[in-house]
Amino acid sequence: MSLETNPILVNHTRGGIVESFHRGVVCVVNENGHIVTAVGDVQQVCYPRSALKLFQHIPLITSGAFDHFGFTLKELALMCGSHNGEEMHTQTARGILAKIGMGEEHLGCGAQTPTHKKDYVTLIKEGKEPGAIHNNCSGKHSGFLAWCVFHNQPTQNYLEAEHPLHIEIKRITALFHEMDEADLVSGVDGCSAPIFAMPVVNQAIAYKNLLFPEKFGDENLNRACALIREAVTTYPEMVAGTKRYCTDLMRVAKGKVIGKTGADGVYSMAIPQKGLGICIKIDDGRMGPQYNVAQQVLDNLDVLSNEEKQDLQGYLVNENKNFAGNVTGQTQVTDILQQFTLRA
Amino acid sequence: MSLETNPILVNHTRGGIVESFHRGVVCVVNENGHIVTAVGDVQQVCYPRSALKLFQHIPLITSGAFDHFGFTLKELALMCGSHNGEEMHTQTARGILAKIGMGEEHLGCGAQTPTHKKDYVTLIKEGKEPGAIHNNCSGKHSGFLAWCVFHNQPTQNYLEAEHPLHIEIKRITALFHEMDEADLVSGVDGCSAPIFAMPVVNQAIAYKNLLFPEKFGDENLNRACALIREAVTTYPEMVAGTKRYCTDLMRVAKGKVIGKTGADGVYSMAIPQKGLGICIKIDDGRMGPQYNVAQQVLDNLDVLSNEEKQDLQGYLVNENKNFAGNVTGQTQVTDILQQFTLRA
Repeated sequence: MSLETNPILVNHTRGGIVESFHRGVVCVVNENGHIVTAVGDVQQVCYPRSALKLFQHIPLITSGAFDHFGFTLKELALMCGSHNGEEMHTQTARGILAKIGMGEEHLGCGAQTPTHKKDYVTLIKEGKEPGAIHNNCSGKHSGFLAWCVFHNQPTQNYLEAEHPLHIEIKRITALFHEMDEADLVSGVDGCSAPIFAMPVVNQAIAYKNLLFPEKFGDENLNRACALIREAVTTYPEMVAGTKRYCTDLMRVAKGKVIGKTGADGVYSMAIPQKGLGICIKIDDGRMGPQYNVAQQVLDNLDVLSNEEKQDLQGYLVNENKNFAGNVTGQTQVTDILQQFTLRA
Repeated sequence: MSLETNPILVNHTRGGIVESFHRGVVCVVNENGHIVTAVGDVQQVCYPRSALKLFQHIPLITSGAFDHFGFTLKELALMCGSHNGEEMHTQTARGILAKIGMGEEHLGCGAQTPTHKKDYVTLIKEGKEPGAIHNNCSGKHSGFLAWCVFHNQPTQNYLEAEHPLHIEIKRITALFHEMDEADLVSGVDGCSAPIFAMPVVNQAIAYKNLLFPEKFGDENLNRACALIREAVTTYPEMVAGTKRYCTDLMRVAKGKVIGKTGADGVYSMAIPQKGLGICIKIDDGRMGPQYNVAQQVLDNLDVLSNEEKQDLQGYLVNENKNFAGNVTGQTQVTDILQQFTLRA
């Protein structure tokens, strides 16, 4: 961790004052991987967490497993997603598992309660318990298992860092983040999968490389990236779900933005028309402020039409409501973000 | 908000790195209200949120309403608490309401889901919905209504800032925080009650004054503070509940600490034997890190025995576990907190 102090990016107000606030980093890189805008310490090392999911399934496609099992773009979007555990998500995850002859009992991601109370209450009323299939990562894990089945690799230890699947994911992660494998910091993710930490700038570069994989000189990589871009923008409801930023953003932006959240305050984006890669990290790991920042960054970069911005306005400035539904204040970005412009 | 940057107080690690971290303020004042230890900007203004509850019921006692209705110390502890909505809490809140001839339909705090999943699932399985009685503030609101009934004041608008109840609470808040009423910043709390913001140092002073109200020269205030101190330390399970820091701390400390959490990262304490008042505020408002800080501060101040510290060790250093129960890292305070000592 750097000793540099990142600026305050987001404020929560209550009554007449700022009650709490969030510091963080924003990095925008262009097609050449050069930084065109930065706020805070872009060398700060953090885990992309679920923002890595788009890269974690490149091996599934390049290996031929994706075609072999006849997976759909909708299924690929779920694999790349952090879903709410809604019926549409668990159904799609079960479909993936059925295609590879496995079941939810093989998922190692652990049980998670569905995001929305409504879905959780429905489960309980049906006398069921939240399971691994409801875990936001069940699509990712189903994709992991598919790679293992296709390669005749063991599935019982598919979450170990030394498993051939994760050795291949590590290689792809290093490639797209333009780092040496030896420099990747290893950790265990919320779903027990191996995860790697990289500087924020390299995470922005990786999202840019999702748009321009041609530099790696591998037709398979080009196709994998194209399929992933098409999957998440065509089926944004699989990437997150009801009332979620990733889903609402990609639905509204209609291909103009690829955006993915990661736990502990990460948001990464790729902007195809402008050839940009972006990574946002909130220092304190609070989930939420990174969406205000992302929405402001898209405003600054003039990516969305006024109508599209209007549809997403609630993510730019949130009204904070209490238990009785009364507005107690606002969540909004600070001036430092409203000012930034692209360097030439 | 000051422009000073508060130091990092708490780190969350994952694998080999610090994944996210929390800045904040700690202020310790002695019997004379002098700062004996400070980390960060003690003039930072924030809302005490639920840490104000201990002061919000002083008028109930000084007015004679507490005696009139024959309230118990257990009921007073619940009024001062931010409870989990467990059966023991809702039962006690209903008891308070019964004594004043009112019902949960008169509570204006809004419905809240019980803190623990177990209690929530039980509710749903019984075909019930979470209500205002489960709101962590239902004890406080029941106490508010008791003041109104005793004074023949209207109850339908008991949450308005201009209601005589809140005019009296504002007076008491200013007195104990040693501020002019005109300097209190007003806001609306999570439960829709009026709330006031004060510098962190004044919040530490207020908790010190809970121990030494004699300076105000009012026997009624002395008795009110004594009852409140006795209530929360005798019935700590009413102040929070199962697996909660306030409850575990006060149960273990057996009168040596009065501690109360507040939303958005606040923790305030009074240490009777040492005559100290303490306030902790986490900048970003995350709930959790303030407990690590509080536990370290108690260590530094040599308040607890080794055995008591052992019982609370899980609040000093938390193991972070993922959905499958695997340890992914730790939450712990930084060196700056481990070093501080009391000034003479």
